Parts: sequence; C-alpha cells; structure tokens
Amino acid sequence: MVVDSNLSMLAQTRPERDEFRTAMARIATAVHVITTAGPGGRAGFTASAVCSVTDTPPTLLVCLNRSASVYDAFEENKMLCVNSLSRSQEPLANLFGGGTPMPERFAAASWSRLATGAPVLEGGVAAFDCRVTSTFDIGTHTVLFCQVEGILRDDQAEALIYFERRYCAVGN
Amino acid sequence: MVVDSNLSMLAQTRPERDEFRTAMARIATAVHVITTAGPGGRAGFTASAVCSVTDTPPTLLVCLNRSASVYDAFEENKMLCVNSLSRSQEPLANLFGGGTPMPERFAAASWSRLATGAPVLEGGVAAFDCRVTSTFDIGTHTVLFCQVEGILRDDQAEALIYFERRYCAVGN
Repeated sequence: MVVDSNLSMLAQTRPERDEFRTAMARIATAVHVITTAGPGGRAGFTASAVCSVTDTPPTLLVCLNRSASVYDAFEENKMLCVNSLSRSQEPLANLFGGGTPMPERFAAASWSRLATGAPVLEGGVAAFDCRVTSTFDIGTHTVLFCQVEGILRDDQAEALIYFERRYCAVGN
Repeated sequence: MVVDSNLSMLAQTRPERDEFRTAMARIATAVHVITTAGPGGRAGFTASAVCSVTDTPPTLLVCLNRSASVYDAFEENKMLCVNSLSRSQEPLANLFGGGTPMPERFAAASWSRLATGAPVLEGGVAAFDCRVTSTFDIGTHTVLFCQVEGILRDDQAEALIYFERRYCAVGN
C-alpha cells in the first residue's frame, strides 16, 4: 500500500474483497430493480451490475449471485425486466435490496406488463423487458445475457444514482 | 408504440437499434478509459459498458466490440486497466472515444503502472489493473472477464457521469 502525499490517493496490489468494494464504490451506477414472473414465481431484487452489451439485437447483461434467494425464480422463468429507478424511487431500492417478503416488495409500487410478462415498474426512468438468451458462470455469479423485447421510457424523470454508498440523482 | 397522456412516457415492443440506444441513454453510467500495453501494442478506448461481477476474487467485466480497431491489442495482451474518469477528465473521454492516433491519446495525460503493466491513469476516481481470465462472445461483442490485480483510488475527485448523451458529475 502506498499513500500519496496529498492523502487522497491510495495504490494497492493484490486487493482483497474490502479494498475492491471500497474502490468500486467510487464507480457511480444507476440503480435497477430486476423483476421476473412465471412458473418459477414472482421475484425482484435491487441491482447495479447491469450493462449494455450490443444494440444488434438490443442486448444487455445482468449479474446475479447464484446464492441469492431469488436465483431459482430467474433461472426457471428465463425472462426478466430491468427497471431503472427514478430519484423518487429510492425507497424501492431499499425495499428490493433487503429481506422483505416478495408480496410486500411488489405492493409498494405500480406494475404493468409489456412483452414477456415480467413486472414492469411504472414511474422509473426506463424499463427493459427481456428474454434471457444465454448465461455464463463466473465465480459466485451468473451473468444473464438478455435480449430486449420491450421498452418503457420516461424522458422527464431524474435518474437515481448510487455513489460512495449513498444515493444521489442526475437530471436533464 | 403507446404514448401516455403526460407525453413523457413511451412504451415500445420489439425495439429497434435506435429505440434501444435512446432508452439506454436514460441509464447513467460512469465513464472509463480502458487501456492495455504489451506485445499487442499500447491501446486505449472510452467505455461505459463496465460492471462489477464478484468480489471473491475481485472481478469486473468490460464489453468490447470485436470490430473495434483496438480489439486485437486487447486480445493479444490479455491484460487491461479500467480507468474511471474524474470530472476534469472529460476531454480524455472525447479523445479516447474518437479516431485520434494512440500516441496523441496517451500524450494527453499522465500514466503509471501498477501490477500488470497496463497504463494506469493518474487523476481519475479509481483505476482497476486487471488480468483477463476468460471471455464470452455475444453478438458483435466480446465480454472480457477481468481479475483485479491492482487498484489506484482517489477519494476526493468528483466522478464523471454520462447521462442523456451529455456529461455531468457527482461528488462526495
């Protein structure tokens, strides 16, 4: 570990889990609630590990811990909706990130359907309704590659951001 | 296509490339310059498609278009650094995103090395020096799974954000 003279720089080789998490907290992300419904049941969880992959066909990815309680529902349903939260939806981020029972989580917001039948959140900045087309296991996680079948977009809402383990927002 | 009465909501099934891109622009992202060096040459490009995968071992992923001019260098070197930009580094985002020759791109900033030898940007919010441990092809892109071997972190700098095809920033 090397601390620079200005006291704000830190260099680290062979970082451990905590150093990695602290550095990743410097990477601002949008906040999403990922939902599914179907034979595997209705489920949803808060995630930041989402990114665009390719636009032809429209495809994004979602990283999911295989030990998460919601994992089996997503694996069985093979469809999901990435609901990107607006500033006013910070309470949903907390609700879907904790140990709250599923019915209580879903009761806290309004939902519609678009293409696959996965719950589509109303009032977010955008929602991407997807079919899971392939998966790749890496360590503790599975990466779900998702082809986008439907989109709901709100061009006015401010976007909820997670940075330095706190919520903030960006607007137009 | 359904336009809601408040004129800000738009629902779309079977979205085309442009609709997907417009909706993805509602998802705020950090801005990164991904660099490499080695037998395949020194190269770097601007990216937003980066996300954390698992913390044990510390692993992130980077999506790279296989038709990009920098692709061969990254494939051959099998190491890279994810340099997350600070607010003041917006000019670097443009420089590494365009057709500027590599020497000119790298001349515009100060670089160090950490673990792998990939160029580590000074003055960013965080840098993750990585070995590429596996890859997965999806459509036009390859997803590079990267194990983090070194970290440089600045806890003071404001982070550069890309939202609605414009730059903005978030701070502490």
